[in-house]
Amino acid sequence: MSLIEALNWRYATKKMNGQAVPQDKVDLILEAARLAPTCNGLQPFQVIVITNPALKQTLLAASYNQSQVVDSSHLLVFAAWDTYTEDRINGVFAHAHNERGTPPESTTDYQKSLVDKYVPREEEVNFSHTARQSYIGLGMALAEAAIQKVDATPMEGFDNAKYDEILGLREKGLRSVALMALGYRDETGDWLVNLKKVRQPKSEFIIEFK
Amino acid sequence: MSLIEALNWRYATKKMNGQAVPQDKVDLILEAARLAPTCNGLQPFQVIVITNPALKQTLLAASYNQSQVVDSSHLLVFAAWDTYTEDRINGVFAHAHNERGTPPESTTDYQKSLVDKYVPREEEVNFSHTARQSYIGLGMALAEAAIQKVDATPMEGFDNAKYDEILGLREKGLRSVALMALGYRDETGDWLVNLKKVRQPKSEFIIEFK
Repeated sequence: MSLIEALNWRYATKKMNGQAVPQDKVDLILEAARLAPTCNGLQPFQVIVITNPALKQTLLAASYNQSQVVDSSHLLVFAAWDTYTEDRINGVFAHAHNERGTPPESTTDYQKSLVDKYVPREEEVNFSHTARQSYIGLGMALAEAAIQKVDATPMEGFDNAKYDEILGLREKGLRSVALMALGYRDETGDWLVNLKKVRQPKSEFIIEFK
Repeated sequence: MSLIEALNWRYATKKMNGQAVPQDKVDLILEAARLAPTCNGLQPFQVIVITNPALKQTLLAASYNQSQVVDSSHLLVFAAWDTYTEDRINGVFAHAHNERGTPPESTTDYQKSLVDKYVPREEEVNFSHTARQSYIGLGMALAEAAIQKVDATPMEGFDNAKYDEILGLREKGLRSVALMALGYRDETGDWLVNLKKVRQPKSEFIIEFK
C-alpha cells in the first residue's frame, strides 16, 4: 500500500477495540518518529510508550475520558524538551562526532552559534520550537502506522500538566505535547469510521508561483 | 522501498543539482501534506509552491543565501494561519457538511466550543498552535518525498517576515513557518551526503511504562 493510499485509509479513530498491536509494528512506528529530521538535528523530543493498564486508567481522567487512552494497545506521549541548554546542544554534537568519527572541533563555532541563539531565549519560545519539531516525528509515526494498517489517533485534548506530573516529565526536562493512541478500530462503535475524509480542496490548499 | 528504508536514505540535502522533479512526484508530496491530520480537522495551513526562477532568486537573499532555494526544483513554503477566527472555523465545518451531506446543525455546539476556546486567545498562542499543525504536514511531505526518492531539505533558517512580505502572505492571513526544497542531491558538491545519519539511540529516545 502506498503512503497516499494509507493516508486515505487512516482516520482519527474514536473507538478502539482493545486488540494488541504486535510489537514489531510498534517498533517500526517508533523508528519512523526517531528518524524524523529536526532543526539542526537536535531532536528535541522523546516518546513515552505506555502499555501499563493501571497507568492508562490513571491517565484517562487527565484525558477528558477519551476512551482511546485505555482501549488502545499502546499509548504514545510525544514530549518535547522544556528548553534548550548548552549541555543538551553540545551533547547532541558529541554523540554525532562519536558516531561519525569526526573531530569535535569541526563544529565548535556552529555549536557556539546555536548556544548563543537558543539558550538566552525565553523558555516558552524555546518550548514552542521544540514542540514543533516533535510534530514532524508525530507526522512520521502517523505515516508509518497507516502503512502498517495500525489505527492511530493523534490527540491534543488532554491535561498536559497532569500528564507531566503523572509521568514525571518535568524532572526529565520534558513537557507533553501530543498523544498518539495505537490500536485497532471498533468498526461497530465508531461514529467516524464511515464518514468521508474531508480536506481543503487542492485549489485552496496550494498556492503556486510559476 | 519501505518508509523506514526511505527515511534512512533521505538526508537534509545541502547542495542540489538543479534537476527538475517530475510534476507527478511533486503532486504526491503535496497530497501527503494535504492528507495530514490536524487538530479538530481545521487544517490551519497552506503550502506555497514556487518554481519561478526570478522569485526564487529574490527569496535567496531572505534565506541566508542557502543554495537549495535556487538549486531546488520546487521550493515549498509551509504557511500557517496567523490566528483562528470564527469564519475560518465555521468555514471548515460548512465544507465538511457539504462534502458529507451531513446536517450543519449536528456540529453547532462543537463549533461554538471551538470558537469559544480559540478565538479569544492571543494571536501568538493561536499561531503557535497552527504552526505545530503545519509540521505534521511537513512530516508527511518529507515521508512521501523520501518514498519517491526525491531529495527534500526542510529549512527554518530564513527571514520569515521577508518571505511573508515577498509572497503577500499576511494579506492572506498566513505566516511562513518552514521551507522544503525539493530536488536532487549534487553528490559531488554536498559535504553531508556521505556522513552517517545520527539519531538519539532508541534507549534514550523511548521511555517505556510497561
